[in-house]
Formats: sequence, structure tokens, C-alpha cells
Amino acid sequence: MRFGGDYNPEQWPAHVWREDARLMREAHVNLVTVGVFSWARYEPSPGARDFAWLDEVLDVLGEHGVGVDLATPTASPPPWLGVLHPDTLPVDPDGVRLVAGSRNQFSPASRVYREHALAITDALVARYAAHPAVRMWHVGNEFGQVCYGDESAAAFRAWLERRYGTVEALNAAWGTTVWSQHYADWSEIVPPRRTVYHVNPSQALDWRRYCSDQLLALYREQRDLIRTYDAERPVTTNFMGFFPGIDPWTWAEDVDVVADDAYPDPGDPRAPADAALTQDLMRSLGDGAPWLLMESATSAVSWRPHNLPKSPERSRLESLQAVARGADGVCFFQWRASRSGAERFHSAMLPHAGPETRVHRGVRRLGADLARLAPVVGGRVAADVAVVVDWPSWWASGEVARPTDRLDALEQLRAWYRVLWARGVACDLVPAGRDVSGYRAVLVPQLYLLDEAAADALRTATHAGTTLVVGPFTGVADENAHVRTGRFPALLRDVLGVSGEEWVPLPDDGVGLDVAADLSAGPAPRAGVLGELLEAEGAAVLATFADGHLAGGPAVTRHAYGAGDAWYVATVPDEDLLGDVLGAALDRAGVALVLPGAGDAPGVELVRRGDVRFVLNHTAGPVTVPVDGHHLDLLTGRPVDDAVHLAAHDVAALVDHPTERTP
Amino acid sequence: MRFGGDYNPEQWPAHVWREDARLMREAHVNLVTVGVFSWARYEPSPGARDFAWLDEVLDVLGEHGVGVDLATPTASPPPWLGVLHPDTLPVDPDGVRLVAGSRNQFSPASRVYREHALAITDALVARYAAHPAVRMWHVGNEFGQVCYGDESAAAFRAWLERRYGTVEALNAAWGTTVWSQHYADWSEIVPPRRTVYHVNPSQALDWRRYCSDQLLALYREQRDLIRTYDAERPVTTNFMGFFPGIDPWTWAEDVDVVADDAYPDPGDPRAPADAALTQDLMRSLGDGAPWLLMESATSAVSWRPHNLPKSPERSRLESLQAVARGADGVCFFQWRASRSGAERFHSAMLPHAGPETRVHRGVRRLGADLARLAPVVGGRVAADVAVVVDWPSWWASGEVARPTDRLDALEQLRAWYRVLWARGVACDLVPAGRDVSGYRAVLVPQLYLLDEAAADALRTATHAGTTLVVGPFTGVADENAHVRTGRFPALLRDVLGVSGEEWVPLPDDGVGLDVAADLSAGPAPRAGVLGELLEAEGAAVLATFADGHLAGGPAVTRHAYGAGDAWYVATVPDEDLLGDVLGAALDRAGVALVLPGAGDAPGVELVRRGDVRFVLNHTAGPVTVPVDGHHLDLLTGRPVDDAVHLAAHDVAALVDHPTERTP
Amino acid sequence: MRFGGDYNPEQWPAHVWREDARLMREAHVNLVTVGVFSWARYEPSPGARDFAWLDEVLDVLGEHGVGVDLATPTASPPPWLGVLHPDTLPVDPDGVRLVAGSRNQFSPASRVYREHALAITDALVARYAAHPAVRMWHVGNEFGQVCYGDESAAAFRAWLERRYGTVEALNAAWGTTVWSQHYADWSEIVPPRRTVYHVNPSQALDWRRYCSDQLLALYREQRDLIRTYDAERPVTTNFMGFFPGIDPWTWAEDVDVVADDAYPDPGDPRAPADAALTQDLMRSLGDGAPWLLMESATSAVSWRPHNLPKSPERSRLESLQAVARGADGVCFFQWRASRSGAERFHSAMLPHAGPETRVHRGVRRLGADLARLAPVVGGRVAADVAVVVDWPSWWASGEVARPTDRLDALEQLRAWYRVLWARGVACDLVPAGRDVSGYRAVLVPQLYLLDEAAADALRTATHAGTTLVVGPFTGVADENAHVRTGRFPALLRDVLGVSGEEWVPLPDDGVGLDVAADLSAGPAPRAGVLGELLEAEGAAVLATFADGHLAGGPAVTRHAYGAGDAWYVATVPDEDLLGDVLGAALDRAGVALVLPGAGDAPGVELVRRGDVRFVLNHTAGPVTVPVDGHHLDLLTGRPVDDAVHLAAHDVAALVDHPTERTP
Repeated sequence: MRFGGDYNPEQWPAHVWREDARLMREAHVNLVTVGVFSWARYEPSPGARDFAWLDEVLDVLGEHGVGVDLATPTASPPPWLGVLHPDTLPVDPDGVRLVAGSRNQFSPASRVYREHALAITDALVARYAAHPAVRMWHVGNEFGQVCYGDESAAAFRAWLERRYGTVEALNAAWGTTVWSQHYADWSEIVPPRRTVYHVNPSQALDWRRYCSDQLLALYREQRDLIRTYDAERPVTTNFMGFFPGIDPWTWAEDVDVVADDAYPDPGDPRAPADAALTQDLMRSLGDGAPWLLMESATSAVSWRPHNLPKSPERSRLESLQAVARGADGVCFFQWRASRSGAERFHSAMLPHAGPETRVHRGVRRLGADLARLAPVVGGRVAADVAVVVDWPSWWASGEVARPTDRLDALEQLRAWYRVLWARGVACDLVPAGRDVSGYRAVLVPQLYLLDEAAADALRTATHAGTTLVVGPFTGVADENAHVRTGRFPALLRDVLGVSGEEWVPLPDDGVGLDVAADLSAGPAPRAGVLGELLEAEGAAVLATFADGHLAGGPAVTRHAYGAGDAWYVATVPDEDLLGDVLGAALDRAGVALVLPGAGDAPGVELVRRGDVRFVLNHTAGPVTVPVDGHHLDLLTGRPVDDAVHLAAHDVAALVDHPTERTP
Repeated sequence: MRFGGDYNPEQWPAHVWREDARLMREAHVNLVTVGVFSWARYEPSPGARDFAWLDEVLDVLGEHGVGVDLATPTASPPPWLGVLHPDTLPVDPDGVRLVAGSRNQFSPASRVYREHALAITDALVARYAAHPAVRMWHVGNEFGQVCYGDESAAAFRAWLERRYGTVEALNAAWGTTVWSQHYADWSEIVPPRRTVYHVNPSQALDWRRYCSDQLLALYREQRDLIRTYDAERPVTTNFMGFFPGIDPWTWAEDVDVVADDAYPDPGDPRAPADAALTQDLMRSLGDGAPWLLMESATSAVSWRPHNLPKSPERSRLESLQAVARGADGVCFFQWRASRSGAERFHSAMLPHAGPETRVHRGVRRLGADLARLAPVVGGRVAADVAVVVDWPSWWASGEVARPTDRLDALEQLRAWYRVLWARGVACDLVPAGRDVSGYRAVLVPQLYLLDEAAADALRTATHAGTTLVVGPFTGVADENAHVRTGRFPALLRDVLGVSGEEWVPLPDDGVGLDVAADLSAGPAPRAGVLGELLEAEGAAVLATFADGHLAGGPAVTRHAYGAGDAWYVATVPDEDLLGDVLGAALDRAGVALVLPGAGDAPGVELVRRGDVRFVLNHTAGPVTVPVDGHHLDLLTGRPVDDAVHLAAHDVAALVDHPTERTP
Repeated sequence: MRFGGDYNPEQWPAHVWREDARLMREAHVNLVTVGVFSWARYEPSPGARDFAWLDEVLDVLGEHGVGVDLATPTASPPPWLGVLHPDTLPVDPDGVRLVAGSRNQFSPASRVYREHALAITDALVARYAAHPAVRMWHVGNEFGQVCYGDESAAAFRAWLERRYGTVEALNAAWGTTVWSQHYADWSEIVPPRRTVYHVNPSQALDWRRYCSDQLLALYREQRDLIRTYDAERPVTTNFMGFFPGIDPWTWAEDVDVVADDAYPDPGDPRAPADAALTQDLMRSLGDGAPWLLMESATSAVSWRPHNLPKSPERSRLESLQAVARGADGVCFFQWRASRSGAERFHSAMLPHAGPETRVHRGVRRLGADLARLAPVVGGRVAADVAVVVDWPSWWASGEVARPTDRLDALEQLRAWYRVLWARGVACDLVPAGRDVSGYRAVLVPQLYLLDEAAADALRTATHAGTTLVVGPFTGVADENAHVRTGRFPALLRDVLGVSGEEWVPLPDDGVGLDVAADLSAGPAPRAGVLGELLEAEGAAVLATFADGHLAGGPAVTRHAYGAGDAWYVATVPDEDLLGDVLGAALDRAGVALVLPGAGDAPGVELVRRGDVRFVLNHTAGPVTVPVDGHHLDLLTGRPVDDAVHLAAHDVAALVDHPTERTP
């Protein structure tokens, strides 16, 4: 089990390195990420090299048994690069060239930047590929930089040419007959810089795709260079959960270990479920393989307007949640709190105030706990349910000029996921088009873009017996973000047994629903944001809109298709009703619970990883959770029979324990 | 009676054109606007020409009896124009040059753009001037583009030189002695680009004037070119109601038919009255001649953050409202819903889901209804009341650094107009300076700029017996937006019999008023936004401020001037009090109602056009409206005696019907 | 006693000048600031000179006994300067070059601008240095302009080189090891233009310092030029209270008279106390010497969105408040209201409506009152209390990425100051590092930056018997804005007897406190914004956090240090509790009240200046304030015994009056 964090030794004099290594060892730290922001230290002037200090750092760490995740320092070039080569600097949509003084001042398309990035990477990896302290390679940092400048425009055009072959194919894909946008030649195309009015949404979608691919190309060329020196140790980079800037499904096979940076807001009551969703994404990106929590915060971050702290108990809870959901390691940003720079108030494993602090005591406790969870390493989470989440669809669904900007695909996903989380139902996340026929149920909270392959995957699974549950504004557009003509959702009409003709944003206070009595016992169910003007074409109508533009029309339907059920939730129900609807669908699908008989204590999370059942108390008070049978809690080393008692924010990690119960 | 919409055949394959024409005919469509965004289709590369496809489109439409409003495609140049000639692209106040990818990427001052626009217009008109399907010419689209670049600066300077003759006259008009802004030479003048602090308001006002005039010059040169080929068919362009970018009073005589694009927000309870105001503006721009509703939406638009739909009944109601208020045609944007581009979710006459839809059935019903209203065509609306609305005054009243930005000239106009609308009083809109002596009453809700001619027009009419009602912050400044010295309103003191010395923004919660008992029976009248420190100089004081900075001072006055009454409402009264005050003034003026005896059912609109009396139910429930005498409802073909019964959102169009009443 | 305002004769024809001078004399005006925006009038084209008009203006004013504060016109260059020399124009952080049309369009670093500014200053001063009407020199106007362009970048680098000597010293001061920001050469450094993410806070702090120093250099070179012609008359410029753009402590010794522009918002109930704070700052900048209220408004300003007016009584009250707090003169912007330009609606001494107005009658009354206050001239205010307020600390505390942006140093200062103001306690303001051992008490509401000298000053004074009261988030960082390591506040742990390890933003609704019974009798004391995780190290704990992250930890402490008490308020208490805590500290310190026995009528301000006791009624109703002994009111000339009775917004200025009381 990995434990550690980012370590920036260049911020400290050499005598501190040794103290750090000692304190790390005492805290069970076994992995630190080094060098993420060291380019200017390695290459203080163009072509210069200074690695002697790093030799010493790695040696000291190695001596103390601390492994190193060695980073290519390419996320932040030294200031001299932008001064010598202004074209390496990123340009925003207004044409403003961004300067040094912060970080990430590079254009992903800049040839000169990439040459310099590869040169420093080559020097670094050549020197340390055989160093015994190195355990892993870390390429760049939080890939996400964009640039709208001329070199990016050229790269975008080259990407488009590869995608479409001919400019007429591009014109068709972008629908340039609208608003006189027809391109006669590739050279006429520019990124979606500032325009007079709404930009072409198909162009904007391809720009998103290009930006992700361009960054992936950057990642790959550094990864490939590392591979020429080191064929064995894993290479990765750190994702940022549901970050829209890159499509992680297209990146996943290029990272040897999926790694994530996660900073849930301690003030957000929905943070525990949303964090679980992100963790399930990370596990799913690696097809279930263990992943790594690469960055997190021991207490407060500093980039929000108001940064609430975490208690050590809460920090531990969030760390163990990641382990429960598939992580084989927990790391923080950063080991020792910086004194200067823009992250000087970001919490760390070793605060400004030193080791005799509440935060650092918590870190030591967590290190010990993680060591106790060694039996979990390598364990996998089994799931009956798949949830479809797709980046191009998310991108396209957020483009300009749609029925309502209140329908947010990520919020829709989170709302549906929270139902699973609260019920202790395990799920995998899958991109559109993935074969899902092995699951008992597949949820599609919102899938604006739907191509034929993706529709077929849903159809095939449903026909074979999977329960399909589809949310509103799904199947609206094709892969180019063109609206499909005919009654919607065109490619799923047959499966869902309904069809629609109008997407209908709902009034601010929503509308009432009339719901079948066996579906929900809620007092006054309502829906908001969006509804659809539908007709049932074979589906059973389980709920209808009670008034307004859609009065009498179907809101929730269920249709038998082959051996499966296909549900359609054509609106955004209130939280209770959504729980009832999804719950009914899951029940009919026979989806298993993690801890049968555990009841549903609000705020208590139940996860099974391998043979270990985790019970996580996200509430601020003690809870008692009934559990069948005899268990051992790996964290306390004590037996647990019938029920587990947890203090606020405490966790149990239960394995079967055949010993007789205490009488 | 015209019925139709925008039609963009270039978005569809040829086989669809024939289906479209058939469906149009079935829906009673007789006019479609073609080619608004076709430039890139006509001229896919510089100098190329491709009109063959349009030949076929016009032939097909003509064969089906659908007339064509043929547009010059100049609103959106092809991307190649901006690539070859970057100076044709518009520049924003920060110097950012806007690019292709949306629409309207042209600078109105660009010589190169104008040459290309005229060349493609020439080719188009030469080819189709004799085509039998063409009924009307449509120049550009929604003129409103601005540009702050260097060529625009030069054009602005040339415009100023024409206006002022000498740079010293400009210095005087702009008051450049303030803040050391004196210009020694024309060449020093730039548009109001981004400045350190507040820009000179006189400069900003002239910039607005220039922008409107520059666009008018664009319109005129295309219109003149059309006239060289076709001396007969009407030429127009589409206005956008109370759009501040152009002054329609200066454009009106250049359009053969006034045409408007109107998209009231279905979620705005004040939309019916505000729409009526816009329709009265359109009628008034043409001196009462019939106008054309050129664009509207069958259901939702897509450019608001949350786009509420309309029912077919509501769409029909809004269409018939336009007819009632002088339109001889109702068109929509657009015939067939686009699949791609930024308007893909804008409702259309033919939705994505096809003809078997609620929306399309509503379109067909409306087409039939409009055919029934043929007797209305050419009819005029007679009005006893004029309302002064002036663009330069609106512009100037919105410039920086005024007593309060809560006093919005358009909102002020709307508030006063709603009193007329609710009472069923017909009115004309007039610009400042127009002779208004033929009206029983003239309302001036707010006229910040007042030149001597405009003041004389009001004085003359009042002296001759017209009732004048003037709102606050009127007559503040001269035509250069310089504040007039002396007690205000300087040019109307004699007429109003009051004078003031301080404009006084009121506290957030307003102030109470003491009101003469015969003026209002409201329980606790209040005023807000702004008051004025006034003294009566002969006027009767009808209401005073009850407390605060203005305690005891006049708020509403009435002054006999010659044969007329001059009322002054020196604040923003609450809705009830405003209704009482304006109502009292109208009553004293002997203003006629549209349907005497009809009572005042809230949300029921009454309009008389020619011999037809329209009763429009804007409420969501049924209403019964008493009507004297015997009528025939053109829409139902049924007699109406004593009272008209209307379902929610229904309309009656009554003509006198001498037949005996049904016993 | 000075009385007058800005006068802009170039806005008016010559015949008005004489009328103005007559009206000024009648209103007791004796000082007008002339020429602030006259550059374009003096130099209408490059190198031209036109001073004849000003000869006449000064002669007319002199003849009428009106003195002149003659301004260098350098705040606003003529438009031709930016046209001829675009590099003189300021550039914003996005690279946008700002243009003429407003004011202040200059870059403080522009060599060409400075040459032109000195040339016109030389011509002006050479001509008028001996003119008898000139009483004072006014350099520029409201120095505050910033520029991020290339010439500014060069000047910033030169400033940095002077500050740091070597680029390595700069790297250390800026902590450039963070985020790979190491600079190899001075030439790589740029201003904090737009960056990808958070800018280095040390760089941002130095940019603030540079901007203030650069403007001071501008001021000094004009001041020095004036001195070559006139060695005697005072030279000054107008500060803007708590304006962050310049650090007035570094400017104060360069102005012969401290002058301030003050525009409190009439709608802000806290304006009276906040205005008093600003006035105390002005007095303190001059080490207690009389200062000048250089600009204020007779009624409304025009640059807020909604500009509430002042009554003449309120304007008089605010003017006399300045006198009470050390001003030897009261001036307004401006004498005659402008007709054009962006300040056309700013109130003036002579409104558009002329002299027969409420505003002008108030001006005349004020002029007479000020004449009656001649005995106050030169008088000083004695204070027992010092309040530390430091610009670099304010700047640094507002930089990006801190624990919370809700902790605003200025708001914190104002909250603490209001306690003093409400209790009638006089105070001086002092910058960090000033010797404060002469005060009974020193308040440090928040001092984020704390260098060793500043800490020593506080330590020394406390040890010698001064009561020290320190607020939260103090002593966090060193002079480079680097966080000090170790438990905080590192340099004051010994004095305060506490130490902390975590700054803790508090939940939106705050937390409860448990408070020692003798400290506060408030019903349910709470704190918000921020708390700190502290341990007492010898201090008495007077209040603790009742729940949440900090439950049980100290919130308010008191520590005996040498002969003094050191209080620590480690959070933002509610208003009542803050009053109780500071009140208890002041009481223990034996701080004197201005008017013992006067009670504490809310909204009544008590100030003693020299021998005069001012009683100012800021409430909208009459008040009676008990006063011991026999007094004469300078304003009414009437005796005041036992109690002073004041109408709403009225003022008394009491001197001892040995006459027997009226029986």
C-alpha cells in the first residue's frame, strides 16, 4: 500500500532533506513524487544542467526506504523559455499571450516547447533510470493546458485533416451550411476564438477533442522517451477526476497506473458521494485494476474563496474511502508546506508549524492504518451495475444555445449516482459504446450524443436481459453534435417504447407529477429543469406530468424489450422520486447490495473490495450498522459480530472471521 | 395576408426542397425568406459563383405558389473573406479581432467587405430580379454589427467631420474642455475603446449615432443596387424591436415595408404588453402602414439560458396580436429546424420530429386562421394618444455616471405604455420633434435629451389643447448630451409650471407620497428610483413626497397651458399610482376606448384595426368580455352578441354584423 | 480656515469667471484648485502654449481675495500625446493599450510622458511662481495610474534591481523555487500580467510596492521642479483615503500638507465612523499636523450606480467632522457644476440651477461656519491609543490563494476602529514598525506581514506597560510574504503567550464562543470568518470556541508581558463581543474619553481638537448630550451648560466658558 505525497526538495536547503526523510520514515511514507516543478532548477539557463542536488535527494530518500515517483518537470517551463521563444506561451481566446509568474505557461502545440520538454526529460531519465529509489515515472502534471494561438490553430487543422480527410467531410461534420460557415480550404479554419455570437457547436466539440488529443500526444512522447530507458517501472500522470479538459477514457490505456488528484470540498454535504463517484471512475478507467490517489489534502486547500479545513479523522476517512473503492495508495499534496508561492496556505503532511501538530499526528496515524490494510492490496470491486458516462457527450451537452443550461450532465450523473451510493450498490462506469451485457442494470443518466454503436450496445444488452434506465435529453445528437431528425430518441425508440417531439424546459418552480402508487409513496412528487413531450409506443406509463405544457404526458415509462426492461425518466425528478424510480428499477433487476441487512443509515457508505467489506461513517456522530456474521476489523484488529459501532468519521474494514462470537 | 418564415434550403439535400414546398402549401405558407446565410454557398471560394441550386429552389417554390423574400446574403461573409482580408473582421473595444465560426464577422466600415458584399448582391439580384417567385427583397439581416478598429475609426472621423465641419465645433459639442480632452486635429479622435475611466458621454452618444448611420449606409448601398434591377418589388430589412444598435426612426423611410423580428419571453408576465408596444412602434415607423412580423418563434428560442416553450395556442395568440396591431403578415424563424449550428434547438414551423407534431399542427391552424383574416389586410389603427420615444435620448440616458442607473428609459416607457394597454387605449409612437398637435394626449415617459424643436412641438400641441404628460428626468440635456443650465426642465418650465434644482435618487425602499384624494384611492402610494427637488411655478400640486430629502416637495403636478393641460410626474410612482395618474390625465383629455363597455378584464387586450375589433385573451383561463351590439367573429365565422366568450389564449376578430341577434 | 473647491474655468466663457469670483467671495471661499485638467488648454498642440486665459483667471480671483491652489496639469495629457507617442498610453494586464476619451491615459513609467509633463509644468510654474493669488501647488491628481506595458516592465526591473542587487536575492525573496519560476536574468521578469493560474504573491506584492514608488517618483520630479521656482509655498497632492494604489506612509514626508479626497456613501450607515477613520489617517500621516480636505461632495456623486444625495445639513456635518479631526480647510469638487463630460451629474458648490438653490445656500452657511471656527486652526488632537495600519501588509493579505478571502484587512480595521469611535476614544494611526511606547494602548486589528523591527516595536512598548491588542491572521508572513515557519505568530509568541498551528476558516454561520463572564454579558456570542487552532503558553484564556473544528480551543487570550498586557483576539467576533473585548482592554489600559460623562449616545461623535470639544450628531433626530461645566459654542456663539442640544445632523464646537451658568 503506497503512502506519501508530493515532495519539493528544491524549496528547502539540503539539511532539511535529511530531516524530511527521517520524518517520512516515521510516518510510514513509502512513495514521494519528486521534481514536478523542478525544470528551472535543473536547467537554470538555456541548456544548462544541474542534477547534483537531485542525486543527493534521491540517495537520502532511498537510504530511508522512501520510494520515488520521479516526474518529468515539463508542466512548468522556466521563465527564460517564454522570453526566448514567445511562441511557446499559451494564447487565450482573446489573443492574449499569457506570461510567466504562475505555472503552466506553455502551448501544447508548440514545437519549440516540446523540443525543450523532451530534452530535459531525456537528461533526467537518462540519469535516474537506474536509480534504486525510483519506483514510478510521473509525466508532467495535471494535463489540461489550452492555447488558441497560431501554432495551435495549425495543429488543430492538422488534427482535423487526419480526422476528416477532406475539407468537404469537415464541412458536413460541422454543418457549415448554417450561417455561411463553409470552408473552402483547411487554412481558413481557426480555433473557437472570440466570435461575434454563438460559435458553431460542432466546431467547439472538435476543439475539445483536439485539445485532449494534443495533450495526450505530449504525454505519449514523454512516456515513449522514458520507455527507451526503462521498460519496467510504471509510467503515469495525474488525472483530475471529472475534469473536462481531457477525456480520460482515451488516455486510460496509456497510463500504467491510473492516478487521480482529488480535492473534495469539506463544506459540501454531497462530497462523500461525489468523491465515491470519482473513485469509481478511476477504478473503471483501469478496468478494475487498483489505482492511486496521487494528490489530496490533509486539511484545507487554498484555491477556493473560503477554504474549510478537515479534521484528521475526516482526512483519514476520505483516504480509506479511496482504498475501499480500489486505490492501492494514498498520497497528498504535499509533504512539507511551502513558505512562498501561491500554494503557501495549502495544507500539507508536515505543516509550517512542524511535526507536533494535529495534522501531522493524523498523517502518522493514517500511515499506520494503511499498513494494516495490506490485505486489501490488489483486491477488486465487483459490480452488478454499469453507469454510462461519456466525455464527448458531456462536452457537446454543455455547448451554447441549448434548451436550458440548467441541465448539467455532471450534476445529472451525480444525482443518479447518489441513489446507488446511498443504497450500497456497487457500480462500474463505462463510456458510451462499451459492451454492457454482463451487467444486471445499466444506467444512462444523460447521454446527449449517441452514435449507432453506442445505441446498439444498449439495445443488445437490454434484449439479453439487462435492465436499462435512461435519463432525459439522451440520444439527441449524433457524434458531430447534429440533432437527429425524427421523433426522439431516434436510435432508442424501439428499446424504450416511447418517442418524443419537443424538449421542454420547465418553469422555475417545476411541475407536479402523477405517479403510479406502487412506484412512489412520496407526498407530492415534482420534477424540474426539463421535461419532454412524449407519446408511449408500447411502454407502460408510470408517471405523468400533472400540469403545464406537458400536462398528461408521460414522464416515467417502462418497456419490456426482449428479456430486459427499458425505463425512461424523461425529466429531472426530485431527489425522493428519483430514488424511488431508480430503486424500483434496481430491485426488479435483482441488483445485489454490498452488505445485505445493513439497512440504510444515511451517510454510511458500504463497499466491498475483494474479501474486505468497508463501512465508512461520513456523519458527524456515532453510528451502529448491523452486519450478518462474524468479522474481523483490519483497522482495529478486533472482532465484529452482528453490528459494527463507529465513531464520527470512523471506518471499519471487515473480513470474515470464522471464530465463534463472544457469548 | 403573408404567412411563412425563413427558409434555408442550403442546409438540406434537393429532395427535401420539394417536400418542403408541398408542406408549405398545405400549411397556407405564401412567403419564405431565402438566402439570408447563403453567401458561402453562392461564393464558396473568392469570386466563384454557384446559383444553380437556388434556381431550382425558386422554381420549386414558385411551382407551389410560395413567394420568396430574397435576401442579400451579406450578414455573414464566408470564412475566406476574413482570412484573405483580416481588416474586414470586426474589432471589439479591447482591440480583439473577432473571427469566423459564428456569424456577422464583418466591420461595417470595411471598404473591402462592402465591395465584396455589393459584388455578391449584384450577381444575385441580376440573376433573380425577374424570377416570378420573388415577391420582396431582404437586405442583410438584423443590422447591428459594430467595430472599433482602425478603419472604423477613420469612418467615424469622416462622419464627425460631416456633422461638425470643424474640429472646434466638435470640441464644443463634446465639451472637451473637461478632463483635457481637446482635439487639435480630426486624426486624434478614436472610437470609445477601452479607457482608464468613464468615457466622454457626448463622444459615446455620437458613436452610437455613427454606428446606426454606418449600418444604414450599408443597407442603402445594397438597396440602391437592387433598385437598379427591380424598381417595383418592396425592399426591406428586419428590425429587432427596441434594439439600441440602430435608430429605426432614421431608417424607416428607407424600407418599403417595416419588418420586425420579435421573440417575447414566454416566461415574462409582461410580455403581452411589451410585445404590443413593439408592434405599435412598427406600425408607427411606417406612419400607420401595415408592417410585417418577419421573424418569431413557434415555440421556444434557444439563446436564453432557459428557454420556456409556447403552446400552439399561445403562438397563435401572439401572431394574431401582431395582425391586430397592424401587421399584414406573420413569419417565423424558421421553416425547417436546423440539425446543426447554433440554432439547432430554436423551434421551427417544421420541427425535427416532422409534420405530425403539436407544433406543426398549430402552424397549419394558424395558416388557416390568417387566411380568414384577409378582410383585415390594409386596415389601419386610429389613435388619440401619442407616446414620444426617441433613440438618441435613450442612448444618452444610458451613458455612464448619471444620478442612477436604475432609471431605464425603456422600462419607463414600458411602465407607462402598460397603463394604456390595460385600458384598451390605442396610441401611436412618435420620435421627439414630431408634430403631435392632432392627438388628444401626448405622453413623454422620459425624454432625457430635448432640443428646442422637440420642446416647441410639445409646447405648440399643449397650447392648442392637447394634454401633455411628462415623466421624470426629461429635458435634462441638449442634443449633445450637455446638461442644460438653469432650473429644469429648462425648455418646458413655462409649459409645466414647475421648475427643479436637483435630481434625487431615492432610497432602495422608496418614499411615501401624499396624493390628492380625487387623484388616487390607493392605500399607501409610494415612489422609487428617482425624485426631483421641485417648486411649483403656477402648477397645481397633486402629490407631494411625504418624507426624506424631498419631503413636502411636489411629485405630481398639473398646469393649464393655453387650451391644454400639462402634467408632470417627477418620479417613478408605483404601478397603481401610475395607473391612477395617467388614467386621470387620459380621462380629462377625453381619450376614446377601443371597446366602450368592455370593462377591464386583466390580461384581455382590445384593439381596433380598420373595422375589425380584436379581443385577445392573454390569460391561462377562459374569459367573457361584454361587447355592445351584434358582431361576426371572422375566425370562427359565428355571430357574437352582447359578449364574447374566449378560451385560454383564444382570440376573436369581430366585425359589425347587422343580423338580428339570436333570440 | 481654508474653504473652497476645484475650479475649472476652462469649461466656461470669460464672463462667467467674474461672476464666479463674486459668488465665491460671497460664500467665504478663499481657496480654489485651478488647472487640474488644463493641459490640453495650455498646450492645444504639441509645443504650443496658451496661458493668457489663465493670467486673467488668476487676476480675477486675486482681485476677489480668492487664493489659488495651482495644479500641474499632468494627470490628463492631451489626446495628441498618445497619438504621437503610443508608448505613453497605459497598458492593462491583458496587453490592451488604453486610449484617450476619458482621463489619466498615461503610463507612469513612460519617459516621453514624463518629459512632456515636466515641460508643461516648467512653463506653468515659471509663469505663475510669483503670482500673488497662488497660495499652494497641487501636483497631478489622485495618483494611482498603473501600466503593465513594456516600458513599465523595464522600470519594474530597474526598481527590483535597486531593491535586491542580485537576481539571486530576488529569487530568494520571491521564492521562485516554487512552480519553476527561477529567473536567470533580470530581463526575464515581467509585471503580473495575465497568467495561466495564480500569480506568485511575492511578485504581486513587489509590483504593488513598485507602482506606489513609481508614482511617487513622478510626484517628486514635479515637486522638485516647482521648488526650483518657489521655495516657500506648500506643495501637495490629493490622497484618496484608504486607496490601495499608493502607500501614503511612504509619501507623507514628501507633501507639505496632507490632503485628502473623501466621498463617503450617504447610504452607508457606517460612513460616519469610516470617514472618521480616514480623517485620523490623514492627521496621522502628517504626524498630527493640520491637513486639508481637498475634495468632497456637497450632495451626490455620480460614479456610483445609484447616487444618494446629502442634505446641506449632512454636508456641513461631514465638513465639520473633518475640521474636528484635524483639517484646517474644507474643499469640494467642484465649484461650478460641469455641463458636459463624465462628471456632469456630480454635485457642486454652484449647481446647474444656479445660486438660488438649497445646495448653494448650504455652501454659504458652511463658509460662514468655517469662518467662526478660526480658533480651531492649528489645533491638534491628543490620543492615548495607536492603531497599526500598514499598506504592504494590506496588499499582501489580499493576494490570491489564502485561507479565506472573507477576511478583509480594511474591514477588520474598520470594525475595530468603530469600537473606538463609538466610545469617543481618540487614536492615532501608525504604520508597522513605528515606536508606539508612548501610547496607553496599541491595537493591531490585522497585520499579516510582520518583520522583526515591527515585532520589536510592539514587544518593547508592551514590555514598558502599553496594552497590546492583536487580531487574527497577524504575523503570518515576513516582508517578502513568505509564511514564517514554526508555531504562529512566530515573532509574537512570547509577547502573546499563545501559539498556533492552523488557520481555520469558519462555517458560513459562524461558531459559538464560551466567554468568561466578566468579559461579556452578551446573550450568545459568536465568531465568524476565521479562527485559529491555538494553545495557551502562559496566557489566560478569556474565550474559547464552543464547537466545530476548534472546539475547546482559545479564541481570546490575555497575557501579562513585562509591565503590559498582551491580548489576542484570534477570530472575528460579532460586533457586540468585539466591543466588549476591546472595551475591556481599553478600560484596563486606562484610556481617557473625550468627554467624560457624555454617555454613549449612538451616532453621536465626540472629538477634542486643541481646546475645542466637538459634538457631532450623525443621527436623523435631535439629541441631548450631557457635558460637564460651562462652555461656549463657537458655531452659535451661545453658552452651553450641562448639556448640549443638537438638531438632526447638527454640530457643536465647545470651548471652556468661565461665565456663570444661566440660572
